[in-house]
Amino acid sequence: MTLLITGGTVVGPSGTYPADVLVEGEKIAALFAPGGGPDGVETIDATGRYVIPGGIDAHTHMELPFGGTNASDTFDTGTRAAAFGGTTTIIDFAVQRTGEVVQDGLAAWHAKAEGNCHVDYAFHMILGGVDDDSLKAMDQLVADEGISSFKLFMAYPGVFYSDDGQILRAMQKARDNGAMIMMHAENGIAIDVLVQQALARGETDPIHHGLTRPQALEAEATHRAIRLAEVAQDCPLYIVHLSASQALEQVAAARDAGRNVFAETCPQYLYLTLEDQLGAPGFEGAKWVCSTPLRSGREHHHRDLWKGLRSNDLAIVSTDHCPFCFKDQKELGLGDFSKIPNGIGGVEHRVDLVYQGVVDGKLSLERWVETISTTPARMFGLYPRKGVIAPGSDADIVLYDPAGRTRISVETHHMNMDHSAYEGYEIAGKVDTVISRGTVVVADGAYHGRRGHGRYLPRGLSSYLV
Amino acid sequence: MTLLITGGTVVGPSGTYPADVLVEGEKIAALFAPGGGPDGVETIDATGRYVIPGGIDAHTHMELPFGGTNASDTFDTGTRAAAFGGTTTIIDFAVQRTGEVVQDGLAAWHAKAEGNCHVDYAFHMILGGVDDDSLKAMDQLVADEGISSFKLFMAYPGVFYSDDGQILRAMQKARDNGAMIMMHAENGIAIDVLVQQALARGETDPIHHGLTRPQALEAEATHRAIRLAEVAQDCPLYIVHLSASQALEQVAAARDAGRNVFAETCPQYLYLTLEDQLGAPGFEGAKWVCSTPLRSGREHHHRDLWKGLRSNDLAIVSTDHCPFCFKDQKELGLGDFSKIPNGIGGVEHRVDLVYQGVVDGKLSLERWVETISTTPARMFGLYPRKGVIAPGSDADIVLYDPAGRTRISVETHHMNMDHSAYEGYEIAGKVDTVISRGTVVVADGAYHGRRGHGRYLPRGLSSYLV
Amino acid sequence: MTLLITGGTVVGPSGTYPADVLVEGEKIAALFAPGGGPDGVETIDATGRYVIPGGIDAHTHMELPFGGTNASDTFDTGTRAAAFGGTTTIIDFAVQRTGEVVQDGLAAWHAKAEGNCHVDYAFHMILGGVDDDSLKAMDQLVADEGISSFKLFMAYPGVFYSDDGQILRAMQKARDNGAMIMMHAENGIAIDVLVQQALARGETDPIHHGLTRPQALEAEATHRAIRLAEVAQDCPLYIVHLSASQALEQVAAARDAGRNVFAETCPQYLYLTLEDQLGAPGFEGAKWVCSTPLRSGREHHHRDLWKGLRSNDLAIVSTDHCPFCFKDQKELGLGDFSKIPNGIGGVEHRVDLVYQGVVDGKLSLERWVETISTTPARMFGLYPRKGVIAPGSDADIVLYDPAGRTRISVETHHMNMDHSAYEGYEIAGKVDTVISRGTVVVADGAYHGRRGHGRYLPRGLSSYLV
Amino acid sequence: MTLLITGGTVVGPSGTYPADVLVEGEKIAALFAPGGGPDGVETIDATGRYVIPGGIDAHTHMELPFGGTNASDTFDTGTRAAAFGGTTTIIDFAVQRTGEVVQDGLAAWHAKAEGNCHVDYAFHMILGGVDDDSLKAMDQLVADEGISSFKLFMAYPGVFYSDDGQILRAMQKARDNGAMIMMHAENGIAIDVLVQQALARGETDPIHHGLTRPQALEAEATHRAIRLAEVAQDCPLYIVHLSASQALEQVAAARDAGRNVFAETCPQYLYLTLEDQLGAPGFEGAKWVCSTPLRSGREHHHRDLWKGLRSNDLAIVSTDHCPFCFKDQKELGLGDFSKIPNGIGGVEHRVDLVYQGVVDGKLSLERWVETISTTPARMFGLYPRKGVIAPGSDADIVLYDPAGRTRISVETHHMNMDHSAYEGYEIAGKVDTVISRGTVVVADGAYHGRRGHGRYLPRGLSSYLV
Repeated sequence: MTLLITGGTVVGPSGTYPADVLVEGEKIAALFAPGGGPDGVETIDATGRYVIPGGIDAHTHMELPFGGTNASDTFDTGTRAAAFGGTTTIIDFAVQRTGEVVQDGLAAWHAKAEGNCHVDYAFHMILGGVDDDSLKAMDQLVADEGISSFKLFMAYPGVFYSDDGQILRAMQKARDNGAMIMMHAENGIAIDVLVQQALARGETDPIHHGLTRPQALEAEATHRAIRLAEVAQDCPLYIVHLSASQALEQVAAARDAGRNVFAETCPQYLYLTLEDQLGAPGFEGAKWVCSTPLRSGREHHHRDLWKGLRSNDLAIVSTDHCPFCFKDQKELGLGDFSKIPNGIGGVEHRVDLVYQGVVDGKLSLERWVETISTTPARMFGLYPRKGVIAPGSDADIVLYDPAGRTRISVETHHMNMDHSAYEGYEIAGKVDTVISRGTVVVADGAYHGRRGHGRYLPRGLSSYLV
Repeated sequence: MTLLITGGTVVGPSGTYPADVLVEGEKIAALFAPGGGPDGVETIDATGRYVIPGGIDAHTHMELPFGGTNASDTFDTGTRAAAFGGTTTIIDFAVQRTGEVVQDGLAAWHAKAEGNCHVDYAFHMILGGVDDDSLKAMDQLVADEGISSFKLFMAYPGVFYSDDGQILRAMQKARDNGAMIMMHAENGIAIDVLVQQALARGETDPIHHGLTRPQALEAEATHRAIRLAEVAQDCPLYIVHLSASQALEQVAAARDAGRNVFAETCPQYLYLTLEDQLGAPGFEGAKWVCSTPLRSGREHHHRDLWKGLRSNDLAIVSTDHCPFCFKDQKELGLGDFSKIPNGIGGVEHRVDLVYQGVVDGKLSLERWVETISTTPARMFGLYPRKGVIAPGSDADIVLYDPAGRTRISVETHHMNMDHSAYEGYEIAGKVDTVISRGTVVVADGAYHGRRGHGRYLPRGLSSYLV
Repeated sequence: MTLLITGGTVVGPSGTYPADVLVEGEKIAALFAPGGGPDGVETIDATGRYVIPGGIDAHTHMELPFGGTNASDTFDTGTRAAAFGGTTTIIDFAVQRTGEVVQDGLAAWHAKAEGNCHVDYAFHMILGGVDDDSLKAMDQLVADEGISSFKLFMAYPGVFYSDDGQILRAMQKARDNGAMIMMHAENGIAIDVLVQQALARGETDPIHHGLTRPQALEAEATHRAIRLAEVAQDCPLYIVHLSASQALEQVAAARDAGRNVFAETCPQYLYLTLEDQLGAPGFEGAKWVCSTPLRSGREHHHRDLWKGLRSNDLAIVSTDHCPFCFKDQKELGLGDFSKIPNGIGGVEHRVDLVYQGVVDGKLSLERWVETISTTPARMFGLYPRKGVIAPGSDADIVLYDPAGRTRISVETHHMNMDHSAYEGYEIAGKVDTVISRGTVVVADGAYHGRRGHGRYLPRGLSSYLV
Repeated sequence: MTLLITGGTVVGPSGTYPADVLVEGEKIAALFAPGGGPDGVETIDATGRYVIPGGIDAHTHMELPFGGTNASDTFDTGTRAAAFGGTTTIIDFAVQRTGEVVQDGLAAWHAKAEGNCHVDYAFHMILGGVDDDSLKAMDQLVADEGISSFKLFMAYPGVFYSDDGQILRAMQKARDNGAMIMMHAENGIAIDVLVQQALARGETDPIHHGLTRPQALEAEATHRAIRLAEVAQDCPLYIVHLSASQALEQVAAARDAGRNVFAETCPQYLYLTLEDQLGAPGFEGAKWVCSTPLRSGREHHHRDLWKGLRSNDLAIVSTDHCPFCFKDQKELGLGDFSKIPNGIGGVEHRVDLVYQGVVDGKLSLERWVETISTTPARMFGLYPRKGVIAPGSDADIVLYDPAGRTRISVETHHMNMDHSAYEGYEIAGKVDTVISRGTVVVADGAYHGRRGHGRYLPRGLSSYLV
């Protein structure tokens, strides 16, 4: 099929220009100066629209088993919701549990995803136990499986936690095979003490989830990860879901020093607060229990994180999409905040929520596209197949309407959640049309895609390193 | 004329991809996936070449009157040399002398350039005297003349020097009309004391030019300019020819704070040193007298500046091309370093010298293109007409051969200089073909361009602000 | 006369201990373990009192001509008020006006002070014009006149202002002869632009005095002074009346780098704000017009300055005592804030106001004594004659009663002012007894001193340098 | 016994002054202005000498069991050597081994020391295992045993190591009972990985001890300890044996932020290097195996640490005296550096080695006394009994001769070591006379003290907190 997108304004990370985009089959075939495309082909009029590469959400957890339940979006429901929101690629996390063979964990996740996805998908690998076997597996995954990034946890002792020796060994391995180490940077050992003390004092409400995870312990772990990466001869390091000003300072210092240290933040840390959401009356706050936690609105986290996005000390906005329903799932933690499944759902709203920053003057159009699509593609070895409007790239294209409006609500969203973390938010912009590998999957608010359309994307090494 | 560039690898600031580029007339008409272009048109085989947007040198001084003589390159000789080196746009500095009507100064520079340039050119405006009239002129130049950047000097008392009150007023004006303030950041008042003291001690050799301009006085002025811009409600500020680690620290701090503060460096500060060049035996060092001066090789300036380029604390590499012949010109300062005309010529070598950083592992391919072309275009209001390989843009294109080699020498260069600042340097890369607005001006080492081909580029406001 | 002070607790900069102090004539003759002193001498019972060295106010301006009037305290009234407040030494500023012979300025100040002071006094010298003659005079004052510190102004163009070249030359001279350069660090050139613009907009109220002197311009000048001192081969530098967080950051950075950079703050910057005082209704705010100005209470200046006092980034608390009556003096600026004489009176309250910081947990007892007495003595070449309770030192001793209370008011103060900057402040402590060179001058709230008791103190070089 | 020290210059942390010191029994009875003391008592002529409070070495390990052997100095030999070197108080570390009752560990150390010491001694307590019992014991030791400081280890997993949760709990306890937490800040978990890897590669020489403990891992642990102390609501924290520039930066940042964070360094880190000592040919380097290790002379650690001492970012110089003989002890690690007992002996030379810094212009006289005596006394609750020349204080006095010379050598030292870490060092100064609690123990190079003279010093809480 051939398709010509005319009249739009292409937005890339270094600027905007008017161009017509020719799609042939699954690929972008050509870009033309306005009006320069072939006659007689099907056209989409993109007048007044931004033409941007499809969003890439580099951090999702579909169907993740956690705290005795599973994240409520399957690869089916989650990727369909992603498509509605202008995200045409997700990178989910396959999990090796402690004691498990790494490749078995990967196979399990392939089994969940294969044939079920509406948009393309790739995997990072969570290493639940670093030992000689899993270190060897890292090489095999990089070489053969298209997995070039591995996530470790400084939090969750007894579950995913790696100690500093394990982290160092994994970093040394990554340094050698070119992979990226992703880090959940919170000092979980210290946090567990604070949690037990809080519960012992009878502090069981959701807000105590946040109060027992102070930003000092995120900053601490962030610094520690950076130093361990330095000891591992400058292993590339990517801090996930950075939420706090003090942690950002650590990343900024490493970047000023010229290191290969990167970080993502998530929409929840740009808009929501400990007091307003996590501290909502009664058990309501459970909806916003996630780790790292929402931070205090009495400090300047939102301002600083937007600044970090502008300066590229924060390279990417992902969602850490990990939805749980309030009913029956979040409620597992009634009377004990530490039992609340951790996670917020947002895969559908990321493109919009970051665009709102453009409207509000906090971010440029260019950085919007860069943080939601181009940099994720470069960072995780998908570029130029994804993340750019260029001939030869996959035709993952979003037409975004700056004159449109989007209202976020559980009434209208497509994620499998019984509430919305952003209920009632109004965005001054709108996903108009979504094309995934040459197929229009969303247009005029209607869904034209299908389960199974999405394919697994083996990834190469990062092309973002300096 | 129609031209198809096939088989090359397009390099842009966010990555590389193979594509064929169709040129029609003066513009890029289309980009195609490899092999996708039209048949029957003239083709250039770019196999094995990088296809990059033509270089933009944002800081040149053709024919500048200085110290009783004139910079030795005219707009004719200088822009021809630029073309040879892969630079297809220069932004030169028109000068208002103290007491002169700003528009008269601009007219004088138009008269020098018009009809004489081999590649396109634009102007910044030097304000030699900030007063009510020149402030009013700033508005007129922005609105009508395509001049959106104004340079002030914290150095050269009695010549170009503006005091802090004048600087503040110009910044306030720029804040209001959207222009950029460019700053020569050296504390000229203090430097003049050191110069007079050195001469009184009989220290007259060229190296004393550098010793009397310590980096502390560049860092001081850089910080001062940043603070004045803060007082002017965050007026955009661009530090020219940043040369020193301490000055870079000031820019980095401002950028970490999210300010619209930018800086350029120049090849001479990335490769040359006070001891090796400025301190050459006898009067030889005069060749490298420029301000800001070359810095000591015993410190870490080179390392830090390359790091700044990686981290984007340094946004642009310009040349500050201001050549003087050794014979008769540099020699004006025999016996008194303060009489040596200040300037180094390099417009021809910038693209190569920065590429060598890629070869040496100091910079990515993407940052090479960004610092020599894309960011200058965005910073100074030329994007997307210049600085990008995109349909609709001017067909300013360089085919760069990474397998070629370039040897820099006065024997072979095209600048009107009787010596080379980089004599004997070998670059592991080569400018292969240069296209300016659709015309092949350099191919196979031969020149096919012509004087008068280059046109004046009225500029808009910067699209680089955050 | 012999006097034994018994039962008190000596407080010094490194700690407290119980001791009896024997005074013979004008000197401390001995310190004894409690009860160890001689029998049969006159005793003062200091039980429950802190025994501290008399306060040293290193920054006063008695009778200073300013803005067409004179500071309202003479050396007579001002030093008597100082004595009441526990300050037994002042260092006032002799003034060389532009064009005047330095020694003539000094002679004029000696004439004002001699025979009129109630406590001992010394002089810094203000250089109103740095030239060959005044540079030579610096040597003579250091060698012969007991003047080892020279103050320059980066503010007040046309009055006291020195340009950066003059500053550099004076610093070089100080570097050679061992003197200290004191700096009024505000960018007066830029401030004058803001002042003229404010007046042109009709913004004439006292608060605009503060709004036209933003902290960025204090931080700027502070950094500039630090860099110039670096160029002058690490000339000792002392920043006067530091008022703002950003300026403190500059001092802290220089100190972290190991430089001989010091700073004082004043009580007004620790307690008062731009909004509450300078912004008082009508013309009331004129009482608090001083330069540097009071800072915004919406920022964290108070907190940061107390922290600076704790960490010794701020070494001294002086008053910058420069009182003007509201009636007829401050009123000179009715309708034009720039005509309001600059200055606040506080020489009487410094010891109490800093002690309140001890009560409030912001400062240790040791730092109280250090910042108000010991460090001023060391910094300005008066140690160990002053600033310490030690045998051989002048018997300048204050018995301070931590159980007493002090209420500050124009009704009760002894300064020649028709208002108080701290009207109604209550201090949880009280100056009980004041001894100046062996003479009890204040006891039980009554005055026993006399005009003419105070003597000129020629000073040596600083013993505080690192 | 009564003793009058005449003609000397008392040096205290805030300056020097001439005074005569009267000793009665074990105490200082009085200080007199020169010549003012009583007649007819025994006198010591201190003309030309500095009269300083006896040195306090806050970090020694007499008889410490380590690596299958014991530190070679007993409390007898070690305190006698200390006396020779002008140190009249040591604070040694009692050890609770994992699983042991804290009080039993303390009792064991009392048993070793009691009746054996030549000078006074106190104890810190090492907590080898933080649990409910040892936390409770902390309260008891503070309240009843005169132990107000507790040391934890982030190094030595399986021996003394505490995890971050244990550290946090101990810090919370200290925050409540006023004690100080002392920290060995090295990331031992990561170090163990590096050590095993080095040994596996056959890198067994002593220098690999240093190479497997990179400064990044000291800086990491230092930052982590600071953050944990912050989470423990600003628990006072004291970093022991800080050796590296990067770690110092962390302490400096915490101190700039106003925190109760302190650090000591040791003479070995001020004078010795990884290359010159640890890298000595053959197994020679084993003499200098200690942890934290000696750092590279190619970096600026020495310069930075002296600067830290000047700025008080480093508060104290201790020795970490932990001597092992080369023969039979250090040799345990032949063929495996990880088996070399860790420790350097230096209790005898600290006062001299820091004084050499005064001679070299790196430190002031005042800071010398402060870092070796006054601050240790204040920091660890011994002030004003120790650390100051004041009436009522213990008569621990050193007469130091700046015209003398000291040559350090195994031939002449008094420590029980078969080598000297500082063999051949020449100090431009000399310990002349040492008085411990009123008794002259060293005079004219001869020893007059006796085993058993030294008494246990129960300590109060720190008086150094801000």
